[in-house]
Amino acid sequence: MNDTIATILNHRSIRHFEDKPLTEEQIRTIVTSAQSASTSSFIQAYSIIGVKDREKKRRLAELAGNQEYVEKNGHFFVFCADLYRHTIIGEKEQKNVNSSIESTEKFMVALIDATLAAQNAAIAAESLGLGICYIGGIRNQLEEVQKVLKTPERVIPLFGLAVGYPVKQNERKPRLPFEHIYHEDEYQQNTEIYNRQLDEYDELISNYYIQRTEGKRNDRWTEQMGKMLEKQNRMYMKEFIQKNKLDLR
Amino acid sequence: MNDTIATILNHRSIRHFEDKPLTEEQIRTIVTSAQSASTSSFIQAYSIIGVKDREKKRRLAELAGNQEYVEKNGHFFVFCADLYRHTIIGEKEQKNVNSSIESTEKFMVALIDATLAAQNAAIAAESLGLGICYIGGIRNQLEEVQKVLKTPERVIPLFGLAVGYPVKQNERKPRLPFEHIYHEDEYQQNTEIYNRQLDEYDELISNYYIQRTEGKRNDRWTEQMGKMLEKQNRMYMKEFIQKNKLDLR
Repeated sequence: MNDTIATILNHRSIRHFEDKPLTEEQIRTIVTSAQSASTSSFIQAYSIIGVKDREKKRRLAELAGNQEYVEKNGHFFVFCADLYRHTIIGEKEQKNVNSSIESTEKFMVALIDATLAAQNAAIAAESLGLGICYIGGIRNQLEEVQKVLKTPERVIPLFGLAVGYPVKQNERKPRLPFEHIYHEDEYQQNTEIYNRQLDEYDELISNYYIQRTEGKRNDRWTEQMGKMLEKQNRMYMKEFIQKNKLDLR
Repeated sequence: MNDTIATILNHRSIRHFEDKPLTEEQIRTIVTSAQSASTSSFIQAYSIIGVKDREKKRRLAELAGNQEYVEKNGHFFVFCADLYRHTIIGEKEQKNVNSSIESTEKFMVALIDATLAAQNAAIAAESLGLGICYIGGIRNQLEEVQKVLKTPERVIPLFGLAVGYPVKQNERKPRLPFEHIYHEDEYQQNTEIYNRQLDEYDELISNYYIQRTEGKRNDRWTEQMGKMLEKQNRMYMKEFIQKNKLDLR
Protein backbone atom coordinates (compact mmCIF):
# COMPACT_ATOMS: atom_id res chain seq x y z
CA MET A 1 0.00 0.00 0.00
CA ASN A 2 1.40 3.40 -0.91
CA ASP A 3 1.42 6.44 1.40
CA THR A 4 -1.47 8.15 -0.36
CA ILE A 5 -3.82 5.19 -0.02
CA ALA A 6 -2.68 4.73 3.59
CA THR A 7 -3.60 8.38 4.24
CA ILE A 8 -7.00 7.94 2.59
CA LEU A 9 -7.85 4.73 4.45
CA ASN A 10 -6.69 6.18 7.75
CA HIS A 11 -9.21 9.04 7.62
CA ARG A 12 -11.31 9.83 10.65
CA SER A 13 -12.94 13.12 11.55
CA ILE A 14 -11.07 15.13 14.18
CA ARG A 15 -13.10 17.26 16.56
CA HIS A 16 -10.44 18.37 19.00
CA PHE A 17 -7.52 20.43 17.75
CA GLU A 18 -4.45 22.07 19.28
CA ASP A 19 -4.57 25.85 19.51
CA LYS A 20 -1.93 26.24 16.82
CA PRO A 21 -2.63 28.08 13.56
CA LEU A 22 -1.62 26.70 10.22
CA THR A 23 1.23 28.51 8.48
CA GLU A 24 0.63 30.54 5.33
CA GLU A 25 2.59 27.88 3.47
CA GLN A 26 0.32 25.10 4.73
CA ILE A 27 -2.75 27.09 3.73
CA ARG A 28 -1.34 27.70 0.29
CA THR A 29 -0.49 24.03 -0.19
CA ILE A 30 -3.99 22.99 0.85
CA VAL A 31 -5.74 25.52 -1.42
CA THR A 32 -3.47 24.79 -4.36
CA SER A 33 -4.22 21.10 -3.90
CA ALA A 34 -7.93 21.91 -3.91
CA GLN A 35 -7.54 23.83 -7.15
CA SER A 36 -5.81 20.87 -8.82
CA ALA A 37 -9.00 18.81 -8.75
CA SER A 38 -10.98 18.19 -11.92
CA THR A 39 -13.56 20.81 -12.79
CA SER A 40 -16.56 20.34 -15.06
CA SER A 41 -15.75 21.77 -18.53
CA PHE A 42 -13.09 23.93 -16.83
CA ILE A 43 -15.85 26.02 -15.21
CA GLN A 44 -14.16 26.35 -11.77
CA ALA A 45 -17.47 27.20 -10.14
CA TYR A 46 -16.39 27.42 -6.50
CA SER A 47 -14.62 29.64 -4.02
CA ILE A 48 -12.91 28.99 -0.73
CA ILE A 49 -13.07 31.38 2.20
CA GLY A 50 -10.44 30.95 4.90
CA VAL A 51 -11.61 32.33 8.22
CA LYS A 52 -9.01 33.60 10.68
CA ASP A 53 -10.89 36.39 12.40
CA ARG A 54 -11.70 35.23 15.96
CA GLU A 55 -15.10 36.89 16.12
CA LYS A 56 -16.19 35.46 12.77
CA LYS A 57 -15.09 32.00 13.83
CA ARG A 58 -16.96 32.31 17.10
CA ARG A 59 -20.09 33.36 15.25
CA LEU A 60 -19.80 30.54 12.70
CA ALA A 61 -19.36 28.02 15.53
CA GLU A 62 -22.55 29.33 17.09
CA LEU A 63 -24.45 29.19 13.79
CA ALA A 64 -23.25 25.65 13.14
CA GLY A 65 -24.92 24.53 16.37
CA ASN A 66 -22.27 25.44 18.93
CA GLN A 67 -19.61 23.19 17.53
CA GLU A 68 -16.48 24.17 19.43
CA TYR A 69 -14.09 22.81 16.80
CA VAL A 70 -15.42 25.35 14.29
CA GLU A 71 -13.84 27.99 16.51
CA LYS A 72 -10.84 26.10 17.86
CA ASN A 73 -8.69 24.68 15.11
CA GLY A 74 -5.65 25.49 13.00
CA HIS A 75 -7.70 27.02 10.19
CA PHE A 76 -11.30 27.09 9.08
CA PHE A 77 -12.15 26.89 5.39
CA VAL A 78 -15.60 27.40 3.92
CA PHE A 79 -16.23 25.84 0.51
CA CYS A 80 -18.80 27.64 -1.61
CA ALA A 81 -20.58 26.87 -4.85
CA ASP A 82 -19.81 30.03 -6.86
CA LEU A 83 -21.74 31.15 -9.92
CA TYR A 84 -21.35 34.83 -9.12
CA ARG A 85 -18.04 34.67 -10.96
CA HIS A 86 -19.84 33.48 -14.08
CA THR A 87 -22.47 36.18 -13.75
CA ILE A 88 -19.66 38.76 -13.88
CA ILE A 89 -18.20 36.91 -16.86
CA GLY A 90 -21.56 37.17 -18.62
CA GLU A 91 -21.46 40.95 -18.18
CA LYS A 92 -17.82 41.16 -19.26
CA GLU A 93 -18.40 39.06 -22.38
CA GLN A 94 -21.85 40.50 -23.04
CA LYS A 95 -23.49 37.11 -23.17
CA ASN A 96 -26.82 36.16 -21.68
CA VAL A 97 -25.76 33.48 -19.25
CA ASN A 98 -28.62 33.75 -16.78
CA SER A 99 -30.89 30.91 -17.91
CA SER A 100 -27.93 28.61 -17.95
CA ILE A 101 -26.63 29.68 -14.55
CA GLU A 102 -30.06 29.41 -12.95
CA SER A 103 -30.55 25.80 -14.01
CA THR A 104 -30.57 22.82 -11.66
CA GLU A 105 -27.81 21.33 -13.81
CA LYS A 106 -25.43 24.24 -13.19
CA PHE A 107 -26.21 24.19 -9.49
CA MET A 108 -25.17 20.53 -9.49
CA VAL A 109 -22.02 21.38 -11.44
CA ALA A 110 -21.04 24.01 -8.88
CA LEU A 111 -21.72 21.64 -5.98
CA ILE A 112 -19.66 18.90 -7.57
CA ASP A 113 -16.80 21.28 -8.43
CA ALA A 114 -16.65 22.65 -4.88
CA THR A 115 -16.75 19.17 -3.37
CA LEU A 116 -14.03 17.72 -5.59
CA ALA A 117 -11.83 20.64 -4.55
CA ALA A 118 -12.69 20.17 -0.87
CA GLN A 119 -11.76 16.52 -0.80
CA ASN A 120 -8.39 17.31 -2.38
CA ALA A 121 -7.89 19.87 0.38
CA ALA A 122 -8.84 17.29 3.02
CA ILE A 123 -6.45 14.65 1.69
CA ALA A 124 -3.63 17.19 1.30
CA ALA A 125 -4.12 18.32 4.92
CA GLU A 126 -4.20 14.76 6.22
CA SER A 127 -1.05 13.91 4.28
CA LEU A 128 0.64 16.75 6.21
CA GLY A 129 -0.27 15.10 9.51
CA LEU A 130 -3.18 17.43 10.12
CA GLY A 131 -6.70 16.36 11.03
CA ILE A 132 -9.92 17.52 9.38
CA CYS A 133 -13.62 17.70 10.04
CA TYR A 134 -16.32 18.68 7.53
CA ILE A 135 -18.92 21.02 8.99
CA GLY A 136 -22.30 20.64 7.31
CA GLY A 137 -23.73 22.54 10.28
CA ILE A 138 -23.04 25.86 8.55
CA ARG A 139 -26.08 25.01 6.40
CA ASN A 140 -28.31 25.39 9.47
CA GLN A 141 -28.58 29.15 8.99
CA LEU A 142 -27.09 30.11 5.68
CA GLU A 143 -28.54 33.59 5.60
CA GLU A 144 -26.54 34.43 8.73
CA VAL A 145 -23.44 32.67 7.41
CA GLN A 146 -23.66 34.81 4.28
CA LYS A 147 -23.63 37.93 6.42
CA VAL A 148 -20.48 36.78 8.24
CA LEU A 149 -18.67 35.89 5.02
CA LYS A 150 -20.15 38.71 2.91
CA THR A 151 -20.85 36.40 0.00
CA PRO A 152 -22.66 37.89 -2.99
CA GLU A 153 -25.68 36.40 -4.73
CA ARG A 154 -25.09 33.09 -6.45
CA VAL A 155 -22.44 32.10 -3.93
CA ILE A 156 -23.77 29.34 -1.67
CA PRO A 157 -21.62 28.32 1.30
CA LEU A 158 -21.85 24.52 1.29
CA PHE A 159 -19.78 23.27 4.22
CA GLY A 160 -16.86 24.16 6.40
CA LEU A 161 -13.61 22.26 6.71
CA ALA A 162 -11.90 22.57 10.07
CA VAL A 163 -8.20 21.71 9.83
CA GLY A 164 -5.59 21.50 12.54
CA TYR A 165 -3.26 19.51 14.71
CA PRO A 166 -5.25 16.63 16.22
CA VAL A 167 -5.39 16.31 19.98
CA LYS A 168 -7.50 13.18 20.04
CA GLN A 169 -7.90 10.48 17.42
CA ASN A 170 -11.27 8.80 17.17
CA GLU A 171 -11.74 5.30 15.95
CA ARG A 172 -12.59 4.79 12.31
CA LYS A 173 -16.30 4.04 11.88
CA PRO A 174 -16.89 0.96 9.72
CA ARG A 175 -18.52 1.73 6.38
CA LEU A 176 -21.33 -0.08 4.56
CA PRO A 177 -20.25 -3.42 3.09
CA PHE A 178 -18.26 -3.11 -0.13
CA GLU A 179 -20.90 -5.19 -1.95
CA HIS A 180 -23.65 -2.84 -0.83
CA ILE A 181 -21.98 0.32 -2.11
CA TYR A 182 -20.39 -1.23 -5.19
CA HIS A 183 -22.53 -2.75 -7.91
CA GLU A 184 -21.24 -4.58 -10.94
CA ASP A 185 -22.70 -3.64 -14.36
CA GLU A 186 -26.06 -2.75 -12.90
CA TYR A 187 -27.69 -1.72 -9.64
CA GLN A 188 -28.38 -4.73 -7.42
CA GLN A 189 -32.02 -4.43 -6.40
CA ASN A 190 -32.65 -7.95 -5.15
CA THR A 191 -34.61 -7.23 -1.96
CA GLU A 192 -33.38 -10.29 -0.09
CA ILE A 193 -29.70 -9.56 -0.73
CA TYR A 194 -30.19 -5.84 -0.13
CA ASN A 195 -31.86 -6.36 3.25
CA ARG A 196 -29.39 -9.04 4.34
CA GLN A 197 -26.52 -6.63 3.67
CA LEU A 198 -28.25 -3.96 5.77
CA ASP A 199 -28.85 -6.46 8.59
CA GLU A 200 -25.21 -7.56 8.58
CA TYR A 201 -24.09 -3.96 8.67
CA ASP A 202 -26.50 -3.17 11.49
CA GLU A 203 -24.90 -5.89 13.55
CA LEU A 204 -21.40 -4.60 12.76
CA ILE A 205 -22.31 -1.04 13.77
CA SER A 206 -24.13 -2.15 16.88
CA ASN A 207 -21.05 -4.10 18.00
CA TYR A 208 -18.86 -1.13 17.16
CA TYR A 209 -20.87 1.11 19.51
CA ILE A 210 -21.04 -1.53 22.25
CA GLN A 211 -17.26 -1.80 22.17
CA ARG A 212 -16.62 1.94 21.93
CA THR A 213 -19.01 2.92 24.73
CA GLU A 214 -18.50 -0.13 26.95
CA GLY A 215 -22.05 -1.22 26.36
CA LYS A 216 -23.78 2.14 26.80
CA ARG A 217 -24.82 2.37 23.15
CA ASN A 218 -25.81 -0.35 20.74
CA ASP A 219 -27.68 1.46 17.96
CA ARG A 220 -28.03 -0.15 14.59
CA TRP A 221 -27.20 1.98 11.53
CA THR A 222 -30.65 1.74 9.96
CA GLU A 223 -32.11 2.72 13.35
CA GLN A 224 -29.92 5.84 13.42
CA MET A 225 -30.84 6.71 9.85
CA GLY A 226 -34.56 6.14 10.40
CA LYS A 227 -34.56 8.44 13.41
CA MET A 228 -32.51 11.09 11.66
CA LEU A 229 -34.57 11.09 8.47
CA GLU A 230 -37.88 11.15 10.32
CA LYS A 231 -37.00 14.70 11.33
CA GLN A 232 -37.21 17.35 8.66
CA ASN A 233 -34.07 19.40 8.53
CA ARG A 234 -33.03 22.60 6.73
CA MET A 235 -36.26 22.64 4.77
CA TYR A 236 -35.66 26.33 3.95
CA MET A 237 -32.85 25.37 1.57
CA LYS A 238 -34.72 25.60 -1.71
CA GLU A 239 -36.13 29.01 -0.87
CA PHE A 240 -32.71 30.22 0.21
CA ILE A 241 -31.05 29.07 -3.00
CA GLN A 242 -33.75 30.65 -5.12
CA LYS A 243 -33.48 33.88 -3.17
CA ASN A 244 -29.85 33.84 -4.21
CA LYS A 245 -30.92 33.84 -7.83
CA LEU A 246 -30.14 30.23 -8.48
CA ASP A 247 -33.61 29.28 -9.53
CA LEU A 248 -33.13 25.52 -9.68
CA ARG A 249 -34.99 25.59 -12.96
CA MET B 1 6.48 17.96 -0.81
CA ASN B 2 5.14 14.54 0.13
CA ASP B 3 4.02 11.90 -2.39
CA THR B 4 0.33 12.51 -1.79
CA ILE B 5 0.54 16.22 -2.51
CA ALA B 6 2.76 15.50 -5.52
CA THR B 7 0.05 13.13 -6.82
CA ILE B 8 -2.67 15.72 -6.26
CA LEU B 9 -0.76 18.56 -7.94
CA ASN B 10 0.21 16.36 -10.86
CA HIS B 11 -3.41 15.67 -11.81
CA ARG B 12 -4.50 16.01 -15.42
CA SER B 13 -7.41 14.31 -17.13
CA ILE B 14 -6.48 11.32 -19.26
CA ARG B 15 -8.54 10.64 -22.36
CA HIS B 16 -6.54 7.86 -23.97
CA PHE B 17 -6.04 4.60 -22.10
CA GLU B 18 -4.32 1.27 -22.80
CA ASP B 19 -6.64 -1.63 -23.46
CA LYS B 20 -5.79 -3.27 -20.14
CA PRO B 21 -8.42 -3.93 -17.48
CA LEU B 22 -7.87 -3.10 -13.85
CA THR B 23 -7.43 -6.07 -11.55
CA GLU B 24 -10.09 -6.96 -8.96
CA GLU B 25 -7.59 -5.86 -6.32
CA GLN B 26 -7.16 -2.44 -7.92
CA ILE B 27 -10.93 -2.00 -8.13
CA ARG B 28 -11.34 -2.99 -4.49
CA THR B 29 -8.61 -0.57 -3.38
CA ILE B 30 -10.22 2.28 -5.32
CA VAL B 31 -13.73 1.61 -4.01
CA THR B 32 -12.53 1.11 -0.43
CA SER B 33 -10.69 4.42 -0.71
CA ALA B 34 -13.90 6.05 -1.92
CA GLN B 35 -15.78 4.66 1.06
CA SER B 36 -13.22 6.11 3.48
CA ALA B 37 -14.26 9.66 2.66
CA SER B 38 -16.30 11.70 5.12
CA THR B 39 -20.05 11.32 4.88
CA SER B 40 -22.65 13.78 6.15
CA SER B 41 -24.02 12.51 9.51
CA PHE B 42 -22.85 9.01 8.49
CA ILE B 43 -25.64 8.90 5.88
CA GLN B 44 -23.57 7.22 3.11
CA ALA B 45 -25.99 8.40 0.45
CA TYR B 46 -24.23 7.17 -2.67
CA SER B 47 -23.52 4.07 -4.72
CA ILE B 48 -20.88 3.19 -7.23
CA ILE B 49 -21.55 1.10 -10.30
CA GLY B 50 -18.54 -0.46 -11.99
CA VAL B 51 -19.23 -1.19 -15.64
CA LYS B 52 -17.35 -4.05 -17.31
CA ASP B 53 -19.89 -5.26 -19.81
CA ARG B 54 -18.69 -4.25 -23.31
CA GLU B 55 -22.12 -3.49 -24.69
CA LYS B 56 -23.09 -1.35 -21.71
CA LYS B 57 -19.83 0.59 -21.98
CA ARG B 58 -20.39 1.13 -25.67
CA ARG B 59 -23.88 2.41 -25.01
CA LEU B 60 -22.73 4.73 -22.20
CA ALA B 61 -20.00 6.12 -24.47
CA GLU B 62 -22.65 6.87 -27.07
CA LEU B 63 -24.97 8.50 -24.53
CA ALA B 64 -22.12 10.63 -23.16
CA GLY B 65 -21.67 12.19 -26.60
CA ASN B 66 -19.51 9.56 -28.31
CA GLN B 67 -16.61 9.85 -25.92
CA GLU B 68 -14.35 6.94 -26.86
CA TYR B 69 -12.58 6.86 -23.50
CA VAL B 70 -15.88 5.95 -21.81
CA GLU B 71 -15.67 2.67 -23.70
CA LYS B 72 -11.91 2.18 -23.85
CA ASN B 73 -10.30 2.29 -20.44
CA GLY B 74 -9.23 0.03 -17.59
CA HIS B 75 -12.52 0.37 -15.74
CA PHE B 76 -15.52 2.63 -15.81
CA PHE B 77 -17.15 3.71 -12.55
CA VAL B 78 -20.44 5.57 -12.27
CA PHE B 79 -20.99 7.55 -9.07
CA CYS B 80 -24.61 7.94 -8.06
CA ALA B 81 -26.44 9.97 -5.45
CA ASP B 82 -28.42 7.25 -3.66
CA LEU B 83 -31.45 7.90 -1.47
CA TYR B 84 -33.18 4.67 -2.52
CA ARG B 85 -31.22 2.97 0.27
CA HIS B 86 -32.77 5.36 2.79
CA THR B 87 -36.25 4.79 1.38
CA ILE B 88 -35.81 1.07 2.07
CA ILE B 89 -34.52 1.96 5.54
CA GLY B 90 -37.68 4.01 6.16
CA GLU B 91 -39.78 0.93 5.35
CA LYS B 92 -37.58 -1.35 7.48
CA GLU B 93 -37.68 1.00 10.45
CA GLN B 94 -41.30 2.05 9.89
CA LYS B 95 -40.44 5.73 9.87
CA ASN B 96 -41.84 8.33 7.54
CA VAL B 97 -38.67 9.53 5.85
CA ASN B 98 -40.18 10.79 2.60
CA SER B 99 -40.44 14.53 3.30
CA SER B 100 -36.89 14.54 4.47
CA ILE B 101 -35.54 12.53 1.54
CA GLU B 102 -37.40 14.67 -0.99
CA SER B 103 -35.87 17.92 0.26
CA THR B 104 -33.35 20.01 -1.65
CA GLU B 105 -31.07 19.73 1.40
CA LYS B 106 -30.92 15.92 1.23
CA PHE B 107 -30.33 16.03 -2.51
CA MET B 108 -27.34 18.27 -1.79
CA VAL B 109 -26.15 15.89 0.93
CA ALA B 110 -26.27 12.94 -1.47
CA LEU B 111 -24.43 14.91 -4.18
CA ILE B 112 -21.73 15.97 -1.73
CA ASP B 113 -21.36 12.46 -0.31
CA ALA B 114 -21.00 10.91 -3.76
CA THR B 115 -18.49 13.52 -4.85
CA LEU B 116 -16.28 13.24 -1.76
CA ALA B 117 -16.16 9.50 -2.38
CA ALA B 118 -15.37 9.99 -6.07
CA GLN B 119 -12.44 12.28 -5.44
CA ASN B 120 -10.94 9.78 -3.00
CA ALA B 121 -11.29 7.17 -5.74
CA ALA B 122 -9.61 9.48 -8.25
CA ILE B 123 -6.66 10.23 -5.98
CA ALA B 124 -6.26 6.57 -5.01
CA ALA B 125 -6.21 5.59 -8.70
CA GLU B 126 -3.69 8.27 -9.58
CA SER B 127 -1.45 7.24 -6.68
CA LEU B 128 -1.37 3.76 -8.28
CA GLY B 129 -0.02 5.27 -11.51
CA LEU B 130 -3.37 5.14 -13.25
CA GLY B 131 -5.02 8.03 -15.07
CA ILE B 132 -8.57 9.26 -14.61
CA CYS B 133 -11.19 11.31 -16.39
CA TYR B 134 -14.51 12.45 -14.97
CA ILE B 135 -17.41 12.06 -17.40
CA GLY B 136 -20.17 14.60 -16.79
CA GLY B 137 -21.45 13.67 -20.25
CA ILE B 138 -23.51 10.84 -18.77
CA ARG B 139 -25.86 13.57 -17.57
CA ASN B 140 -26.78 14.30 -21.20
CA GLN B 141 -29.41 11.57 -21.24
CA LEU B 142 -29.93 10.27 -17.75
CA GLU B 143 -33.13 8.44 -18.52
CA GLU B 144 -31.24 6.22 -20.94
CA VAL B 145 -28.30 5.85 -18.54
CA GLN B 146 -30.73 4.65 -15.88
CA LYS B 147 -31.97 1.95 -18.25
CA VAL B 148 -28.42 0.73 -18.87
CA LEU B 149 -27.53 0.68 -15.17
CA LYS B 150 -30.99 -0.41 -13.94
CA THR B 151 -30.97 2.14 -11.15
CA PRO B 152 -34.13 2.41 -9.03
CA GLU B 153 -35.97 5.61 -8.16
CA ARG B 154 -34.02 8.03 -5.99
CA VAL B 155 -30.70 6.92 -7.46
CA ILE B 156 -29.30 9.64 -9.71
CA PRO B 157 -26.20 8.81 -11.75
CA LEU B 158 -24.03 11.93 -11.40
CA PHE B 159 -20.87 11.33 -13.39
CA GLY B 160 -18.61 8.62 -14.65
CA LEU B 161 -14.98 8.09 -13.73
CA ALA B 162 -12.90 6.44 -16.42
CA VAL B 163 -9.76 4.88 -14.98
CA GLY B 164 -6.88 3.17 -16.72
CA TYR B 165 -3.30 3.06 -17.83
CA PRO B 166 -2.53 6.37 -19.56
CA VAL B 167 -1.27 6.29 -23.14
CA LYS B 168 -0.88 10.03 -23.49
CA GLN B 169 -0.31 12.68 -20.86
CA ASN B 170 -1.82 16.08 -21.46
CA GLU B 171 -0.40 19.26 -20.09
CA ARG B 172 -1.85 20.56 -16.84
CA LYS B 173 -4.23 23.46 -17.49
CA PRO B 174 -3.43 26.46 -15.29
CA ARG B 175 -6.11 27.21 -12.71
CA LEU B 176 -7.62 30.55 -11.66
CA PRO B 177 -5.24 32.69 -9.58
CA PHE B 178 -4.96 31.57 -5.96
CA GLU B 179 -6.18 35.00 -4.82
CA HIS B 180 -9.28 34.73 -6.98
CA ILE B 181 -10.39 31.38 -5.59
CA TYR B 182 -9.22 31.93 -2.03
CA HIS B 183 -10.71 34.74 0.05
CA GLU B 184 -9.57 35.69 3.52
CA ASP B 185 -12.25 36.21 6.18
CA GLU B 186 -14.81 37.43 3.70
CA TYR B 187 -15.62 37.27 0.00
CA GLN B 188 -13.60 39.80 -1.98
CA GLN B 189 -16.12 41.68 -4.13
CA ASN B 190 -14.05 44.71 -5.10
CA THR B 191 -14.93 44.97 -8.79
CA GLU B 192 -11.60 46.42 -9.86
CA ILE B 193 -9.55 43.69 -8.19
CA TYR B 194 -12.00 41.02 -9.32
CA ASN B 195 -11.86 42.05 -12.97
CA ARG B 196 -8.10 42.53 -12.95
CA GLN B 197 -7.68 38.97 -11.71
CA LEU B 198 -9.93 37.69 -14.50
CA ASP B 199 -7.97 39.70 -17.07
CA GLU B 200 -4.66 38.36 -15.85
CA TYR B 201 -6.01 34.84 -15.96
CA ASP B 202 -7.38 35.38 -19.46
CA GLU B 203 -3.91 36.30 -20.63
CA LEU B 204 -2.40 33.25 -18.94
CA ILE B 205 -4.94 30.89 -20.56
CA SER B 206 -4.62 32.55 -23.94
CA ASN B 207 -0.85 32.07 -23.85
CA TYR B 208 -1.31 28.50 -22.70
CA TYR B 209 -3.43 27.72 -25.79
CA ILE B 210 -1.10 29.58 -28.15
CA GLN B 211 1.79 27.48 -26.88
CA ARG B 212 -0.11 24.19 -26.86
CA THR B 213 -1.58 24.59 -30.35
CA GLU B 214 1.33 26.42 -31.96
CA GLY B 215 -0.78 29.52 -32.36
CA LYS B 216 -3.93 27.87 -33.68
CA ARG B 217 -5.95 28.73 -30.58
CA ASN B 218 -5.77 31.72 -28.31
CA ASP B 219 -9.08 31.76 -26.44
CA ARG B 220 -9.39 33.59 -23.20
CA TRP B 221 -11.03 31.77 -20.28
CA THR B 222 -13.88 34.24 -19.84
CA GLU B 223 -14.50 33.99 -23.59
CA GLN B 224 -14.79 30.20 -23.32
CA MET B 225 -17.08 30.46 -20.32
CA GLY B 226 -19.27 33.13 -21.91
CA LYS B 227 -19.77 30.98 -25.02
CA MET B 228 -20.42 27.85 -23.02
CA LEU B 229 -22.91 29.46 -20.63
CA GLU B 230 -24.79 31.22 -23.39
CA LYS B 231 -26.02 27.78 -24.45
CA GLN B 232 -28.60 26.14 -22.30
CA ASN B 233 -27.62 22.63 -21.44
CA ARG B 234 -29.36 19.70 -19.76
CA MET B 235 -32.35 21.85 -18.90
CA TYR B 236 -34.40 18.67 -18.34
CA MET B 237 -32.50 17.96 -15.13
CA LYS B 238 -35.02 19.29 -12.63
CA GLU B 239 -37.87 17.38 -14.23
CA PHE B 240 -35.79 14.23 -14.33
CA ILE B 241 -34.86 14.46 -10.65
CA GLN B 242 -38.45 15.11 -9.66
CA LYS B 243 -39.62 12.19 -11.76
CA ASN B 244 -37.26 10.13 -9.67
CA LYS B 245 -39.16 11.16 -6.56
CA LEU B 246 -36.57 13.58 -5.31
CA ASP B 247 -38.84 16.56 -5.30
CA LEU B 248 -36.24 19.25 -4.61
CA ARG B 249 -38.66 20.68 -2.06
